[in-house]
Amino acid sequence: MLDVCLLGTGGMMPLPGRFLTSLMVRYNGSNLLIDCGEATQIAIKKKGWVFKPIDVICFTHYHADHISGLPGLLLTMGNAERTEPLTMVGPRGLERVVNALRCIAPELPFEIRYHELTEPEEHLEINGYHITAFKVQHNVVCYGYVLEIPRGGRFDAARAKAADIPLPYWSRLQKGEVITAEDGRIFTPEMVLGPARKGLKVTYTTDTRPVPSIAAYAAGSDLFICEGMYGEPEKEKKAREYKHMTFYEAARLAAQAKPEEMWLTHFSPSLVYPENYLEDVRRIFPETHLGKDGKSITLTFDEK
Amino acid sequence: MLDVCLLGTGGMMPLPGRFLTSLMVRYNGSNLLIDCGEATQIAIKKKGWVFKPIDVICFTHYHADHISGLPGLLLTMGNAERTEPLTMVGPRGLERVVNALRCIAPELPFEIRYHELTEPEEHLEINGYHITAFKVQHNVVCYGYVLEIPRGGRFDAARAKAADIPLPYWSRLQKGEVITAEDGRIFTPEMVLGPARKGLKVTYTTDTRPVPSIAAYAAGSDLFICEGMYGEPEKEKKAREYKHMTFYEAARLAAQAKPEEMWLTHFSPSLVYPENYLEDVRRIFPETHLGKDGKSITLTFDEK
Repeated sequence: MLDVCLLGTGGMMPLPGRFLTSLMVRYNGSNLLIDCGEATQIAIKKKGWVFKPIDVICFTHYHADHISGLPGLLLTMGNAERTEPLTMVGPRGLERVVNALRCIAPELPFEIRYHELTEPEEHLEINGYHITAFKVQHNVVCYGYVLEIPRGGRFDAARAKAADIPLPYWSRLQKGEVITAEDGRIFTPEMVLGPARKGLKVTYTTDTRPVPSIAAYAAGSDLFICEGMYGEPEKEKKAREYKHMTFYEAARLAAQAKPEEMWLTHFSPSLVYPENYLEDVRRIFPETHLGKDGKSITLTFDEK
Repeated sequence: MLDVCLLGTGGMMPLPGRFLTSLMVRYNGSNLLIDCGEATQIAIKKKGWVFKPIDVICFTHYHADHISGLPGLLLTMGNAERTEPLTMVGPRGLERVVNALRCIAPELPFEIRYHELTEPEEHLEINGYHITAFKVQHNVVCYGYVLEIPRGGRFDAARAKAADIPLPYWSRLQKGEVITAEDGRIFTPEMVLGPARKGLKVTYTTDTRPVPSIAAYAAGSDLFICEGMYGEPEKEKKAREYKHMTFYEAARLAAQAKPEEMWLTHFSPSLVYPENYLEDVRRIFPETHLGKDGKSITLTFDEK
């Protein structure tokens, strides 16, 4: 079970009723945050989610609207008595930027571990989250993220019995452990598990032009969260200039990637009524939904 | 006419419905802000006040809840096409802290001028604001501020006529100008103005123990905005430890200073119902009011 919450939906500056775009997910007691603009901690509080289990913060890039809320969040996590290390992931410069911002949050009761992205694509695995960072195309180095929760194959009791595997090992094998029995025999998960089943996949990208690789990364996502800075079709030129996307460009990516659904976010402050453009966008990709502050979904493994 | 708005009333961390404590005033087309915690720009937008005319930002100190909103505010002021210089006032370290935070707001279309406070008391005059910064007692160097709009004496037409001052000079003398006439005669405002009349005075202090000098600075204010971190009388020990005040300590200062009214602010996140303590506090100083996000008042010169 993966809870996903779009904490805010604004780009550039936070507005009353439209906080800056960031994403929080919860899985197995561990929270992961992507981006942390000004007021993100208020959005978390408003949603009723908590600070202490935030184990990972990923950054797309270091424009202020994606990181300005960090010092306040770190202090609030400290006040929530977090002591476990926090992992931060982001483009080169991460430690330098975070340390500069921490001039107003110098003392924290937990360690920060930095993972700076240097390759066009990188993989990390933290607390069950399989994270793929992929470079996108903005006016500074910027990454999108794929978050996956893989799901192992079905346990086959008949095969376990046939291989004469003692019952106490069954659940350990199911969790993926390789076991050496007291009599020297070795049991592997492959002996008792069917082929891996469909897991959960969320793809998140903001602050980028609609480069084709995004569709490839987002392919088959349960949820594709994509920037849509402008709803007005005539703003495509502006989107090109500032390295953002229109709703239609996002929808064309989604039409290729075929996620279960797409949420648009990172609206320009000038875009007061994004709903005015929804009908047109759905002609390109019907499962387009507008992001809304606090909009959330719980993704569960298929019961098929 | 001086408009005063308490943008937020929280201390430590911003909450939904209770942003961090900061003050904005407007006088004669020039805005002055004291402190700028996370989400201050949202509070300004919510109030409907504007960013471009912010000419001065004063800081009490550099704990995150008083300055974390600065990079975002500066960018938003830049987006509002401000090009005039901005003056910042605050304790020693101002330029270093602001430059560190500006790692995420490096390019601004206006200049920043720094005034670092080094004396226990300093006076500045900017755009008609007479500012007195006074040192208070927190766990880091912290200042309170008195903002005054002085008011000249009444113009005495009879004296002007008696002194044979030509009519075109009258309004210039009234504005305080010293004039050398073409015939060499010198006219001074004192020749035509009565004694200075009562101006407007607002005193603002947060993050301090109730040292007696505060009452002296706040004496005779139209409005005294004072921190009240705790409403629960039993938290006086905590207030002493963290260098804050209870409502009752603030009210005792007000009882000495005798402002027209006092607004309490900078409530602890643990203080959910500050109104529960108001009756008791008013026994000490009847004109105590609870601050509320966006609470504002327009102060006008006495018409007596």
